[in-house]
Amino acid sequence: MYPIIIDTDPGVDDAMAIAFALAHPEIELVGLTTVFGNVPVARATRNALALAERFGVPGLPVAQGAKFPLVQSPLPHPEFVHGADGLGNVNYDPPTAQAVAQSAAEFIIEQANRLNGELTVVAIGPLTNLALALKLDPELPGKLRSLVIMGGTVDEPGNVSPVAEANFLSDPHAADVVLGADWPVVVVGLDVTHKIILTDSNLMQLRDKAGETGKLLWDASRFYVNYYSNTGAASGHDEAGCCMHDAAAVAYVVAPELFTCISGPARVISEGVGAGQLTINRKGYTYLLKHWEERPAAKVCMDLEVEKVRSLFLDTIIQHKVR
Amino acid sequence: MYPIIIDTDPGVDDAMAIAFALAHPEIELVGLTTVFGNVPVARATRNALALAERFGVPGLPVAQGAKFPLVQSPLPHPEFVHGADGLGNVNYDPPTAQAVAQSAAEFIIEQANRLNGELTVVAIGPLTNLALALKLDPELPGKLRSLVIMGGTVDEPGNVSPVAEANFLSDPHAADVVLGADWPVVVVGLDVTHKIILTDSNLMQLRDKAGETGKLLWDASRFYVNYYSNTGAASGHDEAGCCMHDAAAVAYVVAPELFTCISGPARVISEGVGAGQLTINRKGYTYLLKHWEERPAAKVCMDLEVEKVRSLFLDTIIQHKVR
Repeated sequence: MYPIIIDTDPGVDDAMAIAFALAHPEIELVGLTTVFGNVPVARATRNALALAERFGVPGLPVAQGAKFPLVQSPLPHPEFVHGADGLGNVNYDPPTAQAVAQSAAEFIIEQANRLNGELTVVAIGPLTNLALALKLDPELPGKLRSLVIMGGTVDEPGNVSPVAEANFLSDPHAADVVLGADWPVVVVGLDVTHKIILTDSNLMQLRDKAGETGKLLWDASRFYVNYYSNTGAASGHDEAGCCMHDAAAVAYVVAPELFTCISGPARVISEGVGAGQLTINRKGYTYLLKHWEERPAAKVCMDLEVEKVRSLFLDTIIQHKVR
Repeated sequence: MYPIIIDTDPGVDDAMAIAFALAHPEIELVGLTTVFGNVPVARATRNALALAERFGVPGLPVAQGAKFPLVQSPLPHPEFVHGADGLGNVNYDPPTAQAVAQSAAEFIIEQANRLNGELTVVAIGPLTNLALALKLDPELPGKLRSLVIMGGTVDEPGNVSPVAEANFLSDPHAADVVLGADWPVVVVGLDVTHKIILTDSNLMQLRDKAGETGKLLWDASRFYVNYYSNTGAASGHDEAGCCMHDAAAVAYVVAPELFTCISGPARVISEGVGAGQLTINRKGYTYLLKHWEERPAAKVCMDLEVEKVRSLFLDTIIQHKVR
């Protein structure tokens, strides 16, 4: 079993990742922590609570996290990607439960201690909560089984600049702090998530075969797929669709063998024209510029077995749906 | 005919580029301009004058250029790559000629005006002289046939940081200024120059078949090849060798059809961890970060026909050597 926390800013693809984690028989979702990003953090918390109820786990702990980035001014929330409510404007029922009293960072630390080296954190929003947790407990990296991050891009062009991905740009200082610590860390960024498209045919399977969960994902995905259709970012396919993004990070937890990675000391550019960029010393050279030295190695996924990861995602939700 | 100026910081691979340009029947080398980089600018000028004499064109105009970068503090000169003298410590005869009275920037502008739209500038050092020429004459970009730049890297890892190439890092502010102007510009960077290796067998052909020119290139290349052997940067080959680098930019002038390019607005990161990095909006998207907007498109070479470019270089010098 993989006990995991998903650190999230739901987000349509976050909802897919949460549904996938809840459905997978080898994953125990011990809680959600929320962060600003796709939506303001209060909305992220509300969405997380509502998703837990809609997905049949109304008692799932949700801990609210950071409202703003570590250093920089906040970016605008991308309402044009995920809708004003973050879930494709599906007009869902308000949740009845409330967030736990702890902050996201405190919840992550508590669960890491309780689970005695078994906890995996899957971070699919800006990395502010992880950076704060690291400041609160510098020993945290040694207490996790792994940290899987959806964010960044190396060779693939970015989605908020030619070199930057949205989660990393949303708090680049936090991302650089997190990748400077010695976690067992894997980055699942655009180099792989831009390769894996969920088409409307795929999403219809969820709608028709995956109960209430599938219906919500279909409804929420209408706005998101429309965004991708307008931008051409999921183009090169015969039909409408969207990138899988966050769920690919959950897939890595249970099926790392489906991903190909490079490894090396990483820096995230925190300011200026290149802000948000993930850079990695993949060759292990000693360079004139020393910024990558004395940093731990991070794994970064560069390729994946698209069909197998897509099937893993769809089949898991269809076969093991909670409701 | 292609009248060209080579803006250079010789440099072993600069010497190869100059020899190639002098030998090519369709190129008229109208002069050399010098810049700090591989060596201090006074040494670059001395080397340029000495190379002109050794290559049989003692009257070739040489105009000395910038001693320091536009904004930043100078980097150390890479004596471990090109030798303390910049030409592999070959202990060459001191030149008898002197540089012209004009600065490099003034010489470039004068020749551009004289040649009435026919001049190509091949810039194979830091771009300080070009940035200064642009400040002196903002109309310069429209007066050139083309500007071919050896520098930068997009997908290929850098040689002075994981993301930066040495010429661009040596004056990133100048590189960003130059790529912000509307020249007919092509960047020949590490994405192609790391693919084209000159092996010792190739260099021996020059030594044995290309007269005084070939002997000098062989002698100068001993130090340079040794650097590549030590770093493994030209590895994956059965024998010792070096990257062609600067001569590839000259090859582009006469044989652009051997190169595959992308195109888009470009920025060079001028400060911080990512300093020196070439970034390009190759997809033409409108991003959240606007730094690439309202910039002209630059062409950047991403691939080349290795065997044909190598043969072009070797055969030209062997068949048409000046002496």
